[in-house]
Amino acid sequence: MSSDSLPSDVASALAGVPPWWADGAPGHLLTGLEPGLEGFLALVRLASVVRDRQEQIARSRPLAGKVFAGMFFDPSLRTRSSLLVACAKLGAEYLDLQPDSSLWTLEFTDEVVMDGVAQEHIREAAGVLGRYAQALGLRAFPARGQWDRERTQPVHRAFAEHAGVPVVNLEGPMAHPCQGLADALTFQDLLGKPRGRKLVFTWAPHPHQGLLAVPHSALWAGSSLGMDVVLAHPEGFDLDAEALDQGRALATESGGALSITHDRDAALEGADLVYAGSWGAVTGPEASRGGHADAVAALRDWKVDTDDLRRGGDAFFLHCLPVRRNVVVTDDVLDGPLSAVLQQAENRVWAQVALLLTLMGNRSS
Amino acid sequence: MSSDSLPSDVASALAGVPPWWADGAPGHLLTGLEPGLEGFLALVRLASVVRDRQEQIARSRPLAGKVFAGMFFDPSLRTRSSLLVACAKLGAEYLDLQPDSSLWTLEFTDEVVMDGVAQEHIREAAGVLGRYAQALGLRAFPARGQWDRERTQPVHRAFAEHAGVPVVNLEGPMAHPCQGLADALTFQDLLGKPRGRKLVFTWAPHPHQGLLAVPHSALWAGSSLGMDVVLAHPEGFDLDAEALDQGRALATESGGALSITHDRDAALEGADLVYAGSWGAVTGPEASRGGHADAVAALRDWKVDTDDLRRGGDAFFLHCLPVRRNVVVTDDVLDGPLSAVLQQAENRVWAQVALLLTLMGNRSS
Amino acid sequence: MSSDSLPSDVASALAGVPPWWADGAPGHLLTGLEPGLEGFLALVRLASVVRDRQEQIARSRPLAGKVFAGMFFDPSLRTRSSLLVACAKLGAEYLDLQPDSSLWTLEFTDEVVMDGVAQEHIREAAGVLGRYAQALGLRAFPARGQWDRERTQPVHRAFAEHAGVPVVNLEGPMAHPCQGLADALTFQDLLGKPRGRKLVFTWAPHPHQGLLAVPHSALWAGSSLGMDVVLAHPEGFDLDAEALDQGRALATESGGALSITHDRDAALEGADLVYAGSWGAVTGPEASRGGHADAVAALRDWKVDTDDLRRGGDAFFLHCLPVRRNVVVTDDVLDGPLSAVLQQAENRVWAQVALLLTLMGNRSS
Repeated sequence: MSSDSLPSDVASALAGVPPWWADGAPGHLLTGLEPGLEGFLALVRLASVVRDRQEQIARSRPLAGKVFAGMFFDPSLRTRSSLLVACAKLGAEYLDLQPDSSLWTLEFTDEVVMDGVAQEHIREAAGVLGRYAQALGLRAFPARGQWDRERTQPVHRAFAEHAGVPVVNLEGPMAHPCQGLADALTFQDLLGKPRGRKLVFTWAPHPHQGLLAVPHSALWAGSSLGMDVVLAHPEGFDLDAEALDQGRALATESGGALSITHDRDAALEGADLVYAGSWGAVTGPEASRGGHADAVAALRDWKVDTDDLRRGGDAFFLHCLPVRRNVVVTDDVLDGPLSAVLQQAENRVWAQVALLLTLMGNRSS
Repeated sequence: MSSDSLPSDVASALAGVPPWWADGAPGHLLTGLEPGLEGFLALVRLASVVRDRQEQIARSRPLAGKVFAGMFFDPSLRTRSSLLVACAKLGAEYLDLQPDSSLWTLEFTDEVVMDGVAQEHIREAAGVLGRYAQALGLRAFPARGQWDRERTQPVHRAFAEHAGVPVVNLEGPMAHPCQGLADALTFQDLLGKPRGRKLVFTWAPHPHQGLLAVPHSALWAGSSLGMDVVLAHPEGFDLDAEALDQGRALATESGGALSITHDRDAALEGADLVYAGSWGAVTGPEASRGGHADAVAALRDWKVDTDDLRRGGDAFFLHCLPVRRNVVVTDDVLDGPLSAVLQQAENRVWAQVALLLTLMGNRSS
Repeated sequence: MSSDSLPSDVASALAGVPPWWADGAPGHLLTGLEPGLEGFLALVRLASVVRDRQEQIARSRPLAGKVFAGMFFDPSLRTRSSLLVACAKLGAEYLDLQPDSSLWTLEFTDEVVMDGVAQEHIREAAGVLGRYAQALGLRAFPARGQWDRERTQPVHRAFAEHAGVPVVNLEGPMAHPCQGLADALTFQDLLGKPRGRKLVFTWAPHPHQGLLAVPHSALWAGSSLGMDVVLAHPEGFDLDAEALDQGRALATESGGALSITHDRDAALEGADLVYAGSWGAVTGPEASRGGHADAVAALRDWKVDTDDLRRGGDAFFLHCLPVRRNVVVTDDVLDGPLSAVLQQAENRVWAQVALLLTLMGNRSS
């Protein structure tokens, strides 16, 4: 990449992102915490600048000849689409890889005799893709019932260990860092200066058990911006304890706060942003699928409606999508002026443009 | 897009396409009738010019950084491929979306409680894709047996209503407008001045019931060019009555004619172009699948052969493809000098280059 | 393509590739033997030069607006990915076609009445794709038990006959020419001057019967470079007799040698390169799947280990991937300093950049 070709404010914002990787090592983003508070905020600034300068960037094609490969072991509309779009804005090419059609059955265990169904070892698969693409993205959801293991994101770490190029988590068991960056940008767009403003992340009903990745990343985003972050959920639906500790540490560092409550009404009082998400119980009787349905049936009043947004000033509504209407949130919220879900989805593009420019811009094509 | 970068004759032809949309609203193409007669002819002219200037356009990349998203709820070879090619000619990126891998199960009904299988509502799906892509394309075939509803193309209209960007019909229940544009260009290529020349659109046997979209769009194309259009089909295989009315109106406006006959021999007399298509009966006993097979068995002599093309001067043969050899048309026609089916397929590219330039050229990237 | 825009050494190396096709005819690469010895070596030289000049080429986009279509009737990670990457390096667009989603069910037989399951004839499918793309790639593995027919690569030849543009074999029954080009480049990278050095291509155990394409193409590559090529395999696992004759002819022309042995130990003595591959027996009792598993169980000591590489000087290890660890080759080989498998996979990109530049560079976009 010739930095000369970038608009000067983009080049300046890019230079303001401190590398979070050792010299010569690839810069992974598996949790989104790797860049640290300063790095995270610099990425959000860069995302805002590239959005302003999108036309000039599209013309200069800073990543011409480079390839980002996205591997989806689980389905995606927004993430896959917004990555291709981000590549298009930068002049890079997007390589879409999916099991069955374009990935062999992979073996992740070391020192195994591969005489079973697995056709290729992660060491070769990641190694080869790292020779083809200048960065890799990976979506892999957790296997249920193995949280102690899954919370370490072993599939993501295996790719990162063997790829030799940056690996970006496109939603895993613990985090969805691209969503977190986009959320921070959206919080800024909606509030101007989010510092000290109240972000309520509230559990909402859903027939299936969702993942913890989005709530974790959103809480970290709000905490990093110095917001007054309140997590509201029914008893038994705790998030990961260490993820909450990490959120509290970010809040301390940024001058914000992170608190947790089961009192939904109190939480919504005075909210500036109401961000809804759905997840299952990690432990306890609700953890099984049947238990989840029963538990949700008794928690239908956690559905977000317009009244919930009117308790302070008018709060904006956020959701990572896809969203089940009239289960998670009412039609009138989504169709009303306080919904920011489309803007939030669009910001995925700019967050990822910023990230790809940071991770792929310094590598030779 | 910087119009400066376009060759002057392309810029001039592009400026000659009158917008068929209100200021600030997106320019959908759901039936192909939206641009009106003048607009349709201007698009065909533009298609011819961009074909001549393809190398300069590829160099100038007028849609750099922009994305066209194609959604295929039904299979496609030509449409999907030619859209990617059209994007490549313009420097745009093509985003391919297919159910299962890259689209969630969609809900189209408003005010529903989404506690069933549908994971995302069309309002969010279309809204998000409209933030990612500068135009959307959509193929969705009609559900059988609900013609009153399907003829209004409800899926296409739902995307158009909620996308906020142009939506292009890539074949729906009533129309295949990209095919219609390509057909008009092909009629011109073959005949020079098609005005007053005879286009016969003839029903042909096929083991399955085809759609009405291609015959409708082809009839409109011929009628728009002022041709003497004759539709020939067996009794009971009527096209949509309103579609025929629209064709007659276009013929009147352009100085052409549109007539319908069950007398195949009379129709073929003196034809300049013979365009074959296959469709099922919308009503009557042939409408069921079993009925269709029986009806077709008795109509095998509607298969097009070389003698059919020799009844006037030598008529060119057209078909939208895929075509079943020796069922719809004989080998000697397809392999002989009068077949224009490959040229017709290629013109899909240039029709779509013209359309994308028109719809996406004025939007900021 | 404007050759002015290419770096001068690339333009010079490209000019050094003699066309292997008649004026106006497309330049297919179905076996990899088409360019002849001189042409093959010139392509390898070009591959090396484009690798050195990759950044300048990515900037100049010599194939802007052009499309390469890859059709995969069998799965692929490396080939599909490396083709998209090669296109990205050249500014071309990659069109990915797969059965079910983007190809109709094809009929290959001529003069058939298409009233069965096949929806489109190869004549139209290839003809249309040849109007959309400036070159086509095709992967189609052989049907088992029809070797006399399959060895002629009938599917590849059918596409080549009807496409009107170059068709590249992306692995077929007899050859994998892109792999062969990449292998020759890798042999050069590893050895500097491969002439007279010893390449051992050794059969290795695998639970499934592999194809003959990679061993054929690798043997031809080594023979073309004037190497001392030794093919080692158990009795009953002969390669195609004519393919071996072609290898011997290349060896004679280049001043190298090609010999065959069942004595694995003798073969490995003094090897500079050990290239492992797995294939089934074409004839004899091992040819059935059950027979294959039994045969392999008795041949486990053909697995490559570090001792095998240490018998002469240190030999480098090669494999086309995917590879089953500890069945085909031990972990310590793949993870040790003598493994060249990732470099070999990366060279697929540069071989294909060279090939696409040769085949697509002279066509109008």
